[in-house]
Amino acid sequence: MLIYGTNPVREALKADRKVYEIFYIKNSQSDILLIARNHNIKTTEMTKGSMDKKFGKNHQNIAANVEDYTFTPLKDAISREGKKLFIMLDGVEDPHNLGAVIRNADAFGASGVIIPKHRSAQITPTVVKVSTGAIEYVSLIRVTNLNQAIRTLKENNIWVVGLELDTDETLEDIYVDLDMCLVFGSEGKGISRLVRENCDYLVKIPMQGTVNSLNISVSSGVALHDITKRRRS
Amino acid sequence: MLIYGTNPVREALKADRKVYEIFYIKNSQSDILLIARNHNIKTTEMTKGSMDKKFGKNHQNIAANVEDYTFTPLKDAISREGKKLFIMLDGVEDPHNLGAVIRNADAFGASGVIIPKHRSAQITPTVVKVSTGAIEYVSLIRVTNLNQAIRTLKENNIWVVGLELDTDETLEDIYVDLDMCLVFGSEGKGISRLVRENCDYLVKIPMQGTVNSLNISVSSGVALHDITKRRRS
Repeated sequence: MLIYGTNPVREALKADRKVYEIFYIKNSQSDILLIARNHNIKTTEMTKGSMDKKFGKNHQNIAANVEDYTFTPLKDAISREGKKLFIMLDGVEDPHNLGAVIRNADAFGASGVIIPKHRSAQITPTVVKVSTGAIEYVSLIRVTNLNQAIRTLKENNIWVVGLELDTDETLEDIYVDLDMCLVFGSEGKGISRLVRENCDYLVKIPMQGTVNSLNISVSSGVALHDITKRRRS
Repeated sequence: MLIYGTNPVREALKADRKVYEIFYIKNSQSDILLIARNHNIKTTEMTKGSMDKKFGKNHQNIAANVEDYTFTPLKDAISREGKKLFIMLDGVEDPHNLGAVIRNADAFGASGVIIPKHRSAQITPTVVKVSTGAIEYVSLIRVTNLNQAIRTLKENNIWVVGLELDTDETLEDIYVDLDMCLVFGSEGKGISRLVRENCDYLVKIPMQGTVNSLNISVSSGVALHDITKRRRS
């Protein structure tokens, strides 16, 4: 898979992902190139024009061909030690939102990000870029059917909490000391009907504004911060 | 000023901003057009090609020529009643980040967003679009010099708290019952040296990840949520 951008390429090298080839523009990113050459990775100089053509405009003069990102089976992620805090995304199709959620998941130590095979952004170079390389450290879990995944979570005593606008309960009503999976829907449509019905609990983030909605990168960050903070104290 | 997108145009109409002309593509956005015609606003049909050319690709088939967004003088914003919670942006040049912060400021009822005249994103159609129209309800304060603005804030007993990565204090150490201004720097460089020195206090958001940083839309959302929540309780 091709990835681009300073942070993604640097984190791929740091995290010991297999890096097959690095592409760069002359006189740039010398620190990354030094690491790459120390690892005997092939480095290929390109012109700005050909980089732009191949990787779009956000490549920051560096790109790489790396081993594909793999998925963790849900049961493996569940069976790990420690308090669980999963994130499930239902119908999030914007790669920027998926990348931002993965970055938040790393920052707040979430147990993994669950996405469906269909009607969802998949792992693209844009997702890797927006995650600023945090994707190296977050378990990605891809399931065929979200409702089946919810059943598995519940069988393992993981509490499934949906974040919605249209509910009376708030984030503060969450009992944080349970293993938990937070479910977020798409910005336009929210959580789909069946998934919402399968949630154990629905909460909203208290807001006082006029427009009254948050981008999913913000709502997931707020929820993860709030829960991890209360778990610590 | 030209704006585009469903939410920005709808909120401009709702908020009684002067709307001089609406542009639309045939057979779309009929609810907004109905409101516009009820207000005797000129509506002009365009082809998709000419809309794309004029407004880029995110116009959602609707755009408008509206009265410019104006700025609130800092002293006016300070003299309003109620507990203050300002946001100051130092060197945030990405219009997506400014738009997202404005959206968060509305959602959590912040007192206003302070930006400098230079080295900062200004109010562009992209900012209005990313704010999802929340810009109609947020006081925008533009100052010539951030350090002078900090002096004015301090003279009015407003506590100036910078969000940084490199500090021992955390968000939780903030005493929330004071009037306050939160300062955020650019993602790459953080808060500039002099502004950081002028802050009364520096805090970080506690994180546990490997990459360990947050986008400013997330960090501002997390901080606003945390402070407004603790003020309520």
